Amino acid sequence: MILLALLLAVAAPGPAEIEAAAPPAAWRSIAPENLLIMETAVGSMVIELAPDFAPAHVAAIRALVAAGRFDGGAITRVQDNYVIQWAARPAAAAPKPAGLPAEYERSARGLAITALGSPDAYAEAGFSNGWPVAQDRAAKTAWLAHCYAMVGVGRDVPPDTGDGSELYAVIGHAPRHLDRNISLVGRVIEGLPEHTALKRGTEALGVYKTPAEYTAIVRIRIADATSPRFEVMDTASASFAAYKHARANRADGFFIRPAGAVDLCNVRVPIRRVMAK
Amino acid sequence: MILLALLLAVAAPGPAEIEAAAPPAAWRSIAPENLLIMETAVGSMVIELAPDFAPAHVAAIRALVAAGRFDGGAITRVQDNYVIQWAARPAAAAPKPAGLPAEYERSARGLAITALGSPDAYAEAGFSNGWPVAQDRAAKTAWLAHCYAMVGVGRDVPPDTGDGSELYAVIGHAPRHLDRNISLVGRVIEGLPEHTALKRGTEALGVYKTPAEYTAIVRIRIADATSPRFEVMDTASASFAAYKHARANRADGFFIRPAGAVDLCNVRVPIRRVMAK
Repeated sequence: MILLALLLAVAAPGPAEIEAAAPPAAWRSIAPENLLIMETAVGSMVIELAPDFAPAHVAAIRALVAAGRFDGGAITRVQDNYVIQWAARPAAAAPKPAGLPAEYERSARGLAITALGSPDAYAEAGFSNGWPVAQDRAAKTAWLAHCYAMVGVGRDVPPDTGDGSELYAVIGHAPRHLDRNISLVGRVIEGLPEHTALKRGTEALGVYKTPAEYTAIVRIRIADATSPRFEVMDTASASFAAYKHARANRADGFFIRPAGAVDLCNVRVPIRRVMAK
Repeated sequence: MILLALLLAVAAPGPAEIEAAAPPAAWRSIAPENLLIMETAVGSMVIELAPDFAPAHVAAIRALVAAGRFDGGAITRVQDNYVIQWAARPAAAAPKPAGLPAEYERSARGLAITALGSPDAYAEAGFSNGWPVAQDRAAKTAWLAHCYAMVGVGRDVPPDTGDGSELYAVIGHAPRHLDRNISLVGRVIEGLPEHTALKRGTEALGVYKTPAEYTAIVRIRIADATSPRFEVMDTASASFAAYKHARANRADGFFIRPAGAVDLCNVRVPIRRVMAK
C-alpha cells in the first residue's frame, strides 16, 4: 500500500507536492506596504491589500490604520457561512467622513488573466497576479471574486457609502452574488481560522447582541521591515498551471473519480510565509 | 427610504419574502425516522437523512444510533473551510465491522430533477426532492452535492471502508471534488452554527491533537412523535422556482448589479421548524 502511494505520487504529483517543488521564480514577494497585521483578543490576522483593484479604498484603509483608528475597534459581527466583520473606533470628529466611490470592477487593460478553464455560474473566472478574479470580455472589465478569506468594505444601501472603517472577511461558501456589488480590497492570508471559530452573533445578519460579545481589536499596523514576509504563487507560472490542473484532477489514491474541473474558489492560490534569514 | 423599500418589495419579492409566502402545498414534511437529534457538549444539531440516495449507509447509521454507539462519542476534527467530523465510540467487539459498498451516485430513474439553470464547474446541477444534486444525463445517474452543511461518511483510502461510525459535515466552501468520491447521507438542518464555531484542530487535516480538545457527544437519537418537526420546500414547486430566481437576481436596494445566475450551493433549500399545535 505504501509502495502504491509512492508510485501514484511519482506518477501524478498532488497540489501540495507541486507547491513544495515550485522554483523561486514561481513566487512573488508581497510588499510590506500591502500587508496589514491585525492583532485581536484571540490572535492575529495578516491581510494582503489589493491596491491594483481598489486603490482609493486601500489608500483610505492605510490612512485609517496610520491614524490608529482600528486600535480599540472590535469584531462586531460573525454570520455563519457568510462573513466576519470588524469596525474602527468612531472618529473623534463628529461628522462621518464621506464614502468613497465604488471600486467594484476595473478595466481589464494591462491585466494578465490566466483562465480557470472550468465553467463558472457568475462570469468567466480566472486568476490575475495571484488573485481570484472574474472578467467580462465584452466590457473589457475585471474584478476580484468573493472567495473564502477575501476582504471587502462594508457599506450602507447607497453604493458610495463605504469608507473603509468597516471591513469583512468571507468565512463561508463564496457569496459570489456580492461580486461587483461591494469593493473588495484584499484577503486574509494568515490567522483566519482563529477568527472563524468565534461565536456566531445572534441578531439579524450575525451581529452580536451586546458589545460584551465583541472581540477587541488591539491594533492594526502596516507591515515593516521587521514583520514576517510572505510570498504568493505567480498565477501566470507553469507551477500554478500544474497546481490548478492537480486541483481539478485529484490523483492520490483517495479519489476514485477526479472531477476534471474545479470551482474558482476551490483553487486557493498558494501563499507562504518566508522564513527570516 | 422606507417607502422605496416597500415599493421594491412589492415589485420584486426577495428570497425571504417568497419563502414566507409559500403555500402549505409547497412544503413537504420530513419524516421523523429521517431525523437525527444529536446532542453535544455545546448544543444540539438536527440532521436530515437521505435514504433515497444512500440507503445502505442510512440503515447502518440508524442501527448505530439505535445501539447507542454515538452516545459518548466525540467531535474529533474541525478543519477550517472544510469539515467538522465526529465519531462513534469504538465497538465493544474487537473486530471493526466491514465497510459498506460505496453509494456515491444512483440511477436517475424515477428522480424528478429541477435544473439549477446556471453553469456549474463539476456537472449539471439541480435539485431533487429538496436536495442539491448533480447529474450525468448520458450515464443516467445523479448524486447529492457537497454543499455547506451536507453530511457524509468518512472512509479510509479504499472506497468500501466507510461504516457510518465516522460522519462529517461541510463547514466551508463546497468541496465538490468530493462528489462521487464519498457517500453523502444527509444534511444538518439546525444547530450547525454552534458547532462551526468550535476551535479548529491543529494536527494535519484539522484533527485535534489531544482527546482533551474533543467535544463530547451526549447522545444521538432518531426523532419521534415528541420531537420538533421540520418541513423542506418542495424543489419542484412554483415557490421554489421563484425563490431560485430571486437568489440569482437579487433585487433589493442593496444590489447594484444582480448576477443573473447563481451557484448551486448559494441556493440553500428553505427548511423550517414547524411549530407544535
